[in-house]
Amino acid sequence: MSKVPVLPPSGFRDFLPTEAAERKALADLITGVYESHGFQTIGLPYFENLSTLQGKGGGQDNEKLLFKILKRGDELVRAQEKGESLADMGLRFDLTLPLARYCARFREQLPKPFKVFQIQPVWRADRPQKGRFREFFQCDVDIIGSKEIGAELDCLSAILTVFQKVGMSGIELHLNDRRILSALRGELSEAEWAEALILLDKLDKIGEEGVKKECMTKWGRIPSGLEKVFSSREIASYQSIAPEAVADLKQLQEHLKSFAASVSLVVNPTLVRGQDYYTGTIFEIRHPDLSGSLAGGGRYNRLLEIFGGQETPAFGGSIGFERLLLILQEKGHSTSSRQPQVFFPLFEESLRGEVQLLASQLRGAGIRVDVFPDAAKLKNQFKYADDRNIPFTAILGSEEKSAKKIKWKTMKDRSEIEISYDSMHDFIQRIVAICKT
Amino acid sequence: MSKVPVLPPSGFRDFLPTEAAERKALADLITGVYESHGFQTIGLPYFENLSTLQGKGGGQDNEKLLFKILKRGDELVRAQEKGESLADMGLRFDLTLPLARYCARFREQLPKPFKVFQIQPVWRADRPQKGRFREFFQCDVDIIGSKEIGAELDCLSAILTVFQKVGMSGIELHLNDRRILSALRGELSEAEWAEALILLDKLDKIGEEGVKKECMTKWGRIPSGLEKVFSSREIASYQSIAPEAVADLKQLQEHLKSFAASVSLVVNPTLVRGQDYYTGTIFEIRHPDLSGSLAGGGRYNRLLEIFGGQETPAFGGSIGFERLLLILQEKGHSTSSRQPQVFFPLFEESLRGEVQLLASQLRGAGIRVDVFPDAAKLKNQFKYADDRNIPFTAILGSEEKSAKKIKWKTMKDRSEIEISYDSMHDFIQRIVAICKT
Repeated sequence: MSKVPVLPPSGFRDFLPTEAAERKALADLITGVYESHGFQTIGLPYFENLSTLQGKGGGQDNEKLLFKILKRGDELVRAQEKGESLADMGLRFDLTLPLARYCARFREQLPKPFKVFQIQPVWRADRPQKGRFREFFQCDVDIIGSKEIGAELDCLSAILTVFQKVGMSGIELHLNDRRILSALRGELSEAEWAEALILLDKLDKIGEEGVKKECMTKWGRIPSGLEKVFSSREIASYQSIAPEAVADLKQLQEHLKSFAASVSLVVNPTLVRGQDYYTGTIFEIRHPDLSGSLAGGGRYNRLLEIFGGQETPAFGGSIGFERLLLILQEKGHSTSSRQPQVFFPLFEESLRGEVQLLASQLRGAGIRVDVFPDAAKLKNQFKYADDRNIPFTAILGSEEKSAKKIKWKTMKDRSEIEISYDSMHDFIQRIVAICKT
Repeated sequence: MSKVPVLPPSGFRDFLPTEAAERKALADLITGVYESHGFQTIGLPYFENLSTLQGKGGGQDNEKLLFKILKRGDELVRAQEKGESLADMGLRFDLTLPLARYCARFREQLPKPFKVFQIQPVWRADRPQKGRFREFFQCDVDIIGSKEIGAELDCLSAILTVFQKVGMSGIELHLNDRRILSALRGELSEAEWAEALILLDKLDKIGEEGVKKECMTKWGRIPSGLEKVFSSREIASYQSIAPEAVADLKQLQEHLKSFAASVSLVVNPTLVRGQDYYTGTIFEIRHPDLSGSLAGGGRYNRLLEIFGGQETPAFGGSIGFERLLLILQEKGHSTSSRQPQVFFPLFEESLRGEVQLLASQLRGAGIRVDVFPDAAKLKNQFKYADDRNIPFTAILGSEEKSAKKIKWKTMKDRSEIEISYDSMHDFIQRIVAICKT
């Protein structure tokens, strides 16, 4: 047969079992924290209609990021003949737009407010490069239908608790408000100001000088709003132009101090966040030693309207799963193992039934038991158990079988004892006790 | 703004929180059983190169089932100009082909044998119809690199244990072997026999008469191999034509009886299973009251070769997640709840800080606490807690705040007690004790 390539598509990843276990452990930790805050999860399809993803909700770059699904059969033929769109569906590039559609659909059936989390993959047709993937997980928490800063507090508490639980210290929480940015428009048209904010959003990558240079190229001067955000990080200096936003930010700071004392709070008027749909508070979690952000989000009170909903206050945030995992892996963070506890080698074919029977009894008692499927060379069987780090080996040869015992080997110290299984109840109790200590 | 539709694409589903919780609980149960058998999970991308999915491994229908990803940018323009393929990637339609690619890629790094499970979505561009979806989950267990029936036994034990754990009785395990089917080719060419097996595979839908009728139309007679499988379900009558397969089936039956006594074993020579890649044992799990199968799989010793591997014995099976879930839902199967345990209403804005602080302390102690984010009408707040079935409500008004107590309400019997929080340690201990009983 001709050989088919063994690599996944460019920008996509395979994960070895240990990596998959690390991913699962981090997802479980985040799930636990989100659930401890009363958030519940939902199910969304991985595909959406293109109209959902191409709506007004996203930023300008979203169209470029879309992976689209080719039409099929007659529909494809018709689309080609008529020069119409070749695709009918797309893969979501974030979890917020599909969530907005979902909440508009189930408005009557969902709790009010609706506290929801999602730990799920998204796809972006970025050019693949080191550390940037086309398929990656996001961990979103959102509260739909709450207008007060309680929504901000609950989502931020959940997100900050995740960083605390994984043992990351030195976290900074950067806060801003889109109402402040809007109020700074000054002499520019709305379209021009939107362009200026896209430049400001590049601050991290190109620095203040870079932003200013691009402004000079574009307008021959620095917009007064940008001059302002570069000149003052004092929240009080925005009081007169955006009093409500400033009051909310102050209150938010006050409350956060009481239960997130170890986090540095930074009111940062240069913070933009890319998506068009934000309307109020925006935030990012950063670390002084790391570039970019670890989490981010904001208030999006008008997003549900594109799905025919009425104005619905909403706030949400997202932890970048891949980034956080990478940091934890670099720190040598270890995860709890779901590896087998007991290994049964197979000495000879005639013992297969006996081994399977004992294994199934132990599994029934909650022990993870790995049975070697082939009566292969014993050296290879023991190497397998060693490589998988299985802590105990249960040896059942024909001699042991007739005496109704197993030889129990503790791999750490290579010690051996014999355990009788003529009373199955005692046998299981004893092994459960050993495995659980 | 113009209204965007709120429904997902045709054939795709949104899940409400209770459905999402049921799905998660079933996936967790299956994960636990698979792990108890020593299987470990991996990570595969959701997309594959088209060459992986269009390889020789799959059945004839696979090409039709593919959702393909439209090329992007210049590549799309070029493909259109040159009349080349418009797509470069596709969504997997099963978990076995990508697994074979993965095992060929990581041959040197994986345990030998490799015991692996996957509980993941797959996509098929079927015509949407009731109970048939275009995106659905499969729960696969596979052992790669084991040639003996120990692989069959371990995978089947894992799969049968799942059905036992969810409380489904009356299960039938149908067994056959592709080597028997191959030996029955008789007077037909290989291509004709492949066609005959495709007809036989429709037995469930069109019945024996239907299969025979289609044979008459095609060949003017019933192939002798089909006559044989219809006439005898006695395993002994295949002994002379496929002695090795019959010996394996007998052994398999013998062992299964010892640890899966409650399952009816049916040697069924009419069982085909669609995929081309099977080479030995094949199986299906059925229930006499239900049409179709609940799980299925088989031995595929040659699949890894299409990825340039050497011949690698492998066996695997898959539980149809959606089907099993539907059956459990119809039986009114309930799942363990990860709902909040304690609800804090917000009486007034000035109490927000205190409520958040108490909530974060309780969350730190492992209690799931839901705080209402807005100082809304109390009636609405209590209705929210009622609708979510949160068992306890912690009331902190301004009076309680100054006395450093909360009023603790047990929703089941509407009883109230007061709990002081002047000693935070005692307060938390007490609430943990209440919530855990």
